[in-house]
Amino acid sequence: MSLIEAFKWRYATKFFDNTRTVDPELVENIVEAARLAPTSSGLQPFELIVITNQSLKEQIVPISFGQAMPAQCSHLLVFAVWDSYSEDRINHIFDITTRERELPLDKYAAYKDRLRAIFGSRSEEQNFAHAAHQAYIALGFAMAEAAALKVDSVPMEGFNTLELDELLSLKDKGLKSVLMLPLGYRDEQNDWLMRMKKVRHPHSEFVSYID
Amino acid sequence: MSLIEAFKWRYATKFFDNTRTVDPELVENIVEAARLAPTSSGLQPFELIVITNQSLKEQIVPISFGQAMPAQCSHLLVFAVWDSYSEDRINHIFDITTRERELPLDKYAAYKDRLRAIFGSRSEEQNFAHAAHQAYIALGFAMAEAAALKVDSVPMEGFNTLELDELLSLKDKGLKSVLMLPLGYRDEQNDWLMRMKKVRHPHSEFVSYID
Repeated sequence: MSLIEAFKWRYATKFFDNTRTVDPELVENIVEAARLAPTSSGLQPFELIVITNQSLKEQIVPISFGQAMPAQCSHLLVFAVWDSYSEDRINHIFDITTRERELPLDKYAAYKDRLRAIFGSRSEEQNFAHAAHQAYIALGFAMAEAAALKVDSVPMEGFNTLELDELLSLKDKGLKSVLMLPLGYRDEQNDWLMRMKKVRHPHSEFVSYID
Repeated sequence: MSLIEAFKWRYATKFFDNTRTVDPELVENIVEAARLAPTSSGLQPFELIVITNQSLKEQIVPISFGQAMPAQCSHLLVFAVWDSYSEDRINHIFDITTRERELPLDKYAAYKDRLRAIFGSRSEEQNFAHAAHQAYIALGFAMAEAAALKVDSVPMEGFNTLELDELLSLKDKGLKSVLMLPLGYRDEQNDWLMRMKKVRHPHSEFVSYID
């Protein structure tokens, strides 16, 4: 099975049909795709927030510089990244790992020390950037699953992250928003982008080979 | 069609069977998945380098802190990101877009002005980080396609990017390496990670809902 046809079908949906909702089972598959995405050292330094509350979705439109997709869509996914790689967070995921793999309790002690040394040697900004990168991979997985399920989506970086953090009380949870992914179904009457040809750099400019 | 089974099958392959090569047609599908990935404003600010040259692959092992996967794998993909959003690069992709969509030549003039203003207001580091993010999404797409095709892969951030840039003469092309993705087939005898349970934060910790 190849995803190329699904990836050609997919496009950045600019206008959702607000009369259609996505089946919660499909949304759960998309969330699960993000949960299964790989992350550096398996730390999974982000969480997802799934918003269906219409009033809240509408409050996110001005935060998104007036873009209507957060209000029109069926489910709005917010990718919220850890504000730091704290001791507790690192310990917690390795506790889970040790338990689920039925390993000796100290199995990852040296590995955790190495991680602490690495994160300790970097600035707060560098660590946050590193954590945010992992959320971008997961966004890719979630979008791939959405396309495979014929659910429309649009990746959004263009919003005021500080205002969204405030609105969703993310600071209290030690999280910072980095990405949104509205899910739904394209409005075939009104989406100007839908009929536009998908354009990319040609293959010859995009890839080179060293044989 | 859902990818969940493929995403469960996938794992970060630590030991490739170096006697097996991936069919070039499958590699092309994986490259195409990355090419079709969404990017901010459609700029696609990265290129792929596909390395099969064994001697070169072996030179990348010390650059990867001794990790053997770049040498063992069948095809080594390098994601190399634009070092800047130059005028020429922005013009070039919009020239392609205008031509392929058969639009008036000045269709994107105002949009390009806006992009120039945005990138001009940010530091070089901020612009590079923004470009690198797009490569992470494309890595997600490439990995999803690989998993769908039952090709093994492992995402790698842990390497000396400056040394790899030097080895591949990326600076001359205005590129900087950010990610590698070895492709191949797992060595079922020797890969210690293959038999380990995949561990993630439980669903209840990973996702929250605002209804």
